[in-house]
Amino acid sequence: MERIEQHTCFGGRQEVWRHASAVLGCDMRFGIYLPSAALRGEACPVLYWLSGLTCTEQNFITKAGAQAYAERSGLILVAPDTSPRGEGVADDPAYDLGQGAGFYLNATQAPWAAHYRMQDYVAQELPALIEQHFPAMAERAIAGHSMGGHGALVTALRNPGRYRSVSAFSPIVAPSQVPWGQKAFAAYLGEDRQAWAQWDAVALIHAASPADHLPMLVDQGLDDEFLETQLRIELLEAACLEAGYLSTVRRHAEYDHSYYFIASFIGEHIAFHAGALRG
Amino acid sequence: MERIEQHTCFGGRQEVWRHASAVLGCDMRFGIYLPSAALRGEACPVLYWLSGLTCTEQNFITKAGAQAYAERSGLILVAPDTSPRGEGVADDPAYDLGQGAGFYLNATQAPWAAHYRMQDYVAQELPALIEQHFPAMAERAIAGHSMGGHGALVTALRNPGRYRSVSAFSPIVAPSQVPWGQKAFAAYLGEDRQAWAQWDAVALIHAASPADHLPMLVDQGLDDEFLETQLRIELLEAACLEAGYLSTVRRHAEYDHSYYFIASFIGEHIAFHAGALRG
Repeated sequence: MERIEQHTCFGGRQEVWRHASAVLGCDMRFGIYLPSAALRGEACPVLYWLSGLTCTEQNFITKAGAQAYAERSGLILVAPDTSPRGEGVADDPAYDLGQGAGFYLNATQAPWAAHYRMQDYVAQELPALIEQHFPAMAERAIAGHSMGGHGALVTALRNPGRYRSVSAFSPIVAPSQVPWGQKAFAAYLGEDRQAWAQWDAVALIHAASPADHLPMLVDQGLDDEFLETQLRIELLEAACLEAGYLSTVRRHAEYDHSYYFIASFIGEHIAFHAGALRG
Repeated sequence: MERIEQHTCFGGRQEVWRHASAVLGCDMRFGIYLPSAALRGEACPVLYWLSGLTCTEQNFITKAGAQAYAERSGLILVAPDTSPRGEGVADDPAYDLGQGAGFYLNATQAPWAAHYRMQDYVAQELPALIEQHFPAMAERAIAGHSMGGHGALVTALRNPGRYRSVSAFSPIVAPSQVPWGQKAFAAYLGEDRQAWAQWDAVALIHAASPADHLPMLVDQGLDDEFLETQLRIELLEAACLEAGYLSTVRRHAEYDHSYYFIASFIGEHIAFHAGALRG
């Protein structure tokens, strides 16, 4: 583990670390914001943030403005990269497959299966690393944007008991039913649709045990260019309604798919998670 | 004038425009944040932001998190590019000369004099454009970072009556005395040191008439790698003291030269300017 960036920010510290991931078989980077309470050695709960297609660990930490709220709430923020990377790692020239587009699942198909195990990385290896090396409590929440909103929902739903709360901006809620997800799932998981259901938030909500339901907050902009083709927030709403899964889904007139939308509401997401984590 | 980006953000709108600049003889871009009051047609005061070396109009609008505060204070934010650009515009391979490094002055030397008239652009042409096309009052404030902190101080000091207040993060306060400034001034202005003094904040503070003194706020991080060689905040403090120019200069332990520092204190700068503009 090597720290490659550190910047004081709102009284806490934004850092970037590089480490060898055993699960992914490559070097990985993550951003971590340590509020001043953590710098004083107090154990703090952790919010994991999963980013969208083409992103690295940099996008969220430079554009969302989340640090101000994390400092106020005493939350650690952890922002991993969106896929394995490096010379030996399979890739594809398209922006929506391969490096930068790991979809937070464990691939089963060649050539992806060797490195693309982002689910094990974000749900297991990374939290273990964080809880070993930083003053982090084993109290976790998870959030994300677009492909990372899918990742946050799926990771929370597949791992009962590991997270206290989940939230998403503009998530791909039903990857099995939209082009981005169908392309990625066919490549990473093959053509078996039953395998796809294990990585599809809408399918997992239908299958979830009521005892495992989590506080869930989802924000969606109505001027989002991907809303009707790739995101389809109405499928999440319908699934929650049918499954009796209580969730807060908010539509915001005029907001788009960008970090300007995330920045506008990240403070409310952090307050939501802080309530679940501290409550 | 063509709008090339628009994003709803904190209830207002972040836009990017491209226009033909007569002063610079090339196309230019600027970011403008319109708070919701401006979107309703209410005339709002304007804070101009000048960015540092290598930046474009994008850095401040994506990384500073200023929109939240501008919305609250009802301020328009305008963030121009840092130099003329384009194929016919002189350039240099170094990051600290030519495109991305205009130093907010009017060049007198070949090959720069043809396009490098950033002072006339930021102090004259751009405000006229903003006040013509947007619901902007002729009440202006100016701020900036590093080379843009130099730009903000010099522009305010050279144009008595045009601005209500000035602030800077990590400014180059005495370009005539440091390597960045000496290199740029020699290229853009030639070797006459008397010409340099017209673009040097410390020299201009000594020359300022007390009747023209403005509210001035300057923040400087103490872990800034450029502090001792390029920025030298102590020269500004000494000049203000000697000239009887009241200013607030704050040193912040542990903060560096990055946007993480700007984000941490931009809310206080906007409150400072809002007080001067509305007061």
